[in-house]
Amino acid sequence: MKIAVLGTGGVGATIGSKLVELGHQVKMGSRSATHEKGLAWTKAAGPNASLGTFEDAASFGELAFNCTSGLGSVSALEAAVAGLSGKVVIDVANPLDFSKGFPPTLFTGNTDSLGEQAQRALPNSKVVKALNHVTASLMTDAKRVAGGDHDALICGNDAGAKAEVTKILKEWFGWQSVIDLGDIGQARGTESYLALWVRLYGALGTADFNLKIMR
Amino acid sequence: MKIAVLGTGGVGATIGSKLVELGHQVKMGSRSATHEKGLAWTKAAGPNASLGTFEDAASFGELAFNCTSGLGSVSALEAAVAGLSGKVVIDVANPLDFSKGFPPTLFTGNTDSLGEQAQRALPNSKVVKALNHVTASLMTDAKRVAGGDHDALICGNDAGAKAEVTKILKEWFGWQSVIDLGDIGQARGTESYLALWVRLYGALGTADFNLKIMR
Repeated sequence: MKIAVLGTGGVGATIGSKLVELGHQVKMGSRSATHEKGLAWTKAAGPNASLGTFEDAASFGELAFNCTSGLGSVSALEAAVAGLSGKVVIDVANPLDFSKGFPPTLFTGNTDSLGEQAQRALPNSKVVKALNHVTASLMTDAKRVAGGDHDALICGNDAGAKAEVTKILKEWFGWQSVIDLGDIGQARGTESYLALWVRLYGALGTADFNLKIMR
Repeated sequence: MKIAVLGTGGVGATIGSKLVELGHQVKMGSRSATHEKGLAWTKAAGPNASLGTFEDAASFGELAFNCTSGLGSVSALEAAVAGLSGKVVIDVANPLDFSKGFPPTLFTGNTDSLGEQAQRALPNSKVVKALNHVTASLMTDAKRVAGGDHDALICGNDAGAKAEVTKILKEWFGWQSVIDLGDIGQARGTESYLALWVRLYGALGTADFNLKIMR
């Protein structure tokens, strides 16, 4: 499958590399088609990895991951809007503001969310919020924590897109449990959880954890 | 032990009744010493239950639970400040604003929290944020979900007070795991989690759940 990975940071590189490993063709999207970190990633990831602008990657992919930093997400998606039309966009970004150090604050939440902003920026795409509540290495390898015995939380407006993302999480990334919270507005919940995540990270001394909802 | 329970709502009644069951003397605090719901609770809970003003209850208790609704917490605690001096105050309240319906928004968070506001209102007390991330019936009976196999999250500035609260959670309320997140500022995390809690509640169709941090 041809897949766009928007963003050249650690999350984009981790997801992009996993997708290449799984046999997919991945084009990483960046503000610049000659972005240094992006080029370094393509070199490391091999012949099925390439780099382009956000627009290039969006047009290339049959599916896209939004792995841009939260503060840059909306402008990146606006640049990619034409290429992403009609496609499923898995939004793993978080509205984190590190400008005052650690722990970061959230620059949106409570009455809006980055997931909703992404869906508004891409009115003809099917945005599914997913995986934003775990560290990058766990996103694509759920089994690295507790043998995979924990929950993925997703939300989005399109039932078919959520079914597709659930399949991807289970079949490609080893997730065993995917909880659908409802429409994209529920991203307010999964993004606000980051305020707890960063504190659990501080208290536990590791990013290798996730929540399991015990009933 | 003599214990103050501030607040006459469902959370105060549930915690107060459990404490009476455990053999403690409980004075519920309210804006009025003749509050109707408070009087009904004392009648149901028996001779070890009584009702008074916030000040009465605070002076009576060797320990206090803040079970007031979030919007009324600071004024209730300000009324009780003298009586609570030097004491441990277990703050289970949440900054929920239901004025626009369900799901509620949070009226503070991100750069402040209700736990911090409580500690500022009670500068001579030892505020420990605890139990705010579960439904009332689960606060005092952790085993009713998954046999107790899930985590309590606490935070506060005083290590001794947190040790006492951890003992209370384990010995009185059946909690098996208590994670200390750090100082009272970490309440920003456990309160922000409510934005996810209300959505899990909606998706799962039950309030009988809690998170377990899988590592």
